[in-house]
Amino acid sequence: MNIDEKTIKEMVRRVLDGDTNKIKYGNEIPVEVSARHVHLSQDDVDKLFGNGYRLTYKRDLSQTGQYLCEERVKLVTEKSELGNVAILGPVRSKTQVEMSFSDARLFNINPPVRLSGNLDGAENIFIICGKKMIEAKNSVIIAQNHIHMTPEDADKYCLTHGQKVQVRVDGGRSVIFNDVPVRIDKSFRLAMHIDFDEANACGFVKNSFGIIL
Amino acid sequence: MNIDEKTIKEMVRRVLDGDTNKIKYGNEIPVEVSARHVHLSQDDVDKLFGNGYRLTYKRDLSQTGQYLCEERVKLVTEKSELGNVAILGPVRSKTQVEMSFSDARLFNINPPVRLSGNLDGAENIFIICGKKMIEAKNSVIIAQNHIHMTPEDADKYCLTHGQKVQVRVDGGRSVIFNDVPVRIDKSFRLAMHIDFDEANACGFVKNSFGIIL
Repeated sequence: MNIDEKTIKEMVRRVLDGDTNKIKYGNEIPVEVSARHVHLSQDDVDKLFGNGYRLTYKRDLSQTGQYLCEERVKLVTEKSELGNVAILGPVRSKTQVEMSFSDARLFNINPPVRLSGNLDGAENIFIICGKKMIEAKNSVIIAQNHIHMTPEDADKYCLTHGQKVQVRVDGGRSVIFNDVPVRIDKSFRLAMHIDFDEANACGFVKNSFGIIL
Repeated sequence: MNIDEKTIKEMVRRVLDGDTNKIKYGNEIPVEVSARHVHLSQDDVDKLFGNGYRLTYKRDLSQTGQYLCEERVKLVTEKSELGNVAILGPVRSKTQVEMSFSDARLFNINPPVRLSGNLDGAENIFIICGKKMIEAKNSVIIAQNHIHMTPEDADKYCLTHGQKVQVRVDGGRSVIFNDVPVRIDKSFRLAMHIDFDEANACGFVKNSFGIIL
């Protein structure tokens, strides 16, 4: 197993801190921050952009097959609105809006913390594109932080699908995220995903790593 | 030592989690969220409100002697502005602006994480009231989370002034804040202070408690 310089420094730091019971080898994980975004169903794409419209690929995201679209939408509630919101492709079976607690306060809605795909108790919001509007009922969640990894990564980290771990992220402020679920799929690329509230809470700096404890 | 129901539940949860090495008795602490605010020097009060002006008491804050003022100000940088910002009294020797990372991004400034009173490397901002404006140089910090307690509390928790502890806060999401400094003074009232980014990261619910680990 290869151990890079940062991991060695981390291990030395822990030894110096007397925190040796938590030492594992090579337990670093890249951390990525997810901004608010929308996944649309083809039905809702049709309503917002016209029948049979295909969303326009702009660039790949870190997870295989996922991409940012050229199109943008506006999110609206009675309380507030936010424009220029990203759409992520490809289309899904259900429209899903992911935002932070900060956004939810602004909109005066109370979405549940959920893993992507779980819309149990999800909130409602209006999605606008130009002169078209849909009410996306049962669509808004606060994305639960999570780790993507391949079966090979899982072997390396000795983790199983659905297992929950603690991850420490040391930005300008050091924070441990508890109960972070591990999701394993051969299409995944190794990364922990957090939202902007979590990024701000730990003073996140781009290209940072977390430590699975 | 009295142990309340919540603490007992917490202890049982830890035993069930196999986390028995961290059990301490009565280690709960109330958590309060600080919104962005300004402390002004009398010199800056004079410039913004007129010579010899006295800020108007509105209501007490949780820490003894600290109070919210009736007056509000606007904060401005080249990039953005935020109005209706609270002023906390009494006046201080130096003007100090406390905001979150989210605010700092909006303003496009890069304030350091500091304990209140430490303006080492602090950022600049314009403070406006009506037609009066000052440039508050070296005034903006992101307030470091911290715990206030009396010497009696410190005895109970077996903690000393300046000691750093881990505090777990379980809101909608469970987070452990590392390296939280303990500040002890007989004028203090027991509370952990976090900012809105940290509150959102843990899905904070009002009147929540943290657990000192």
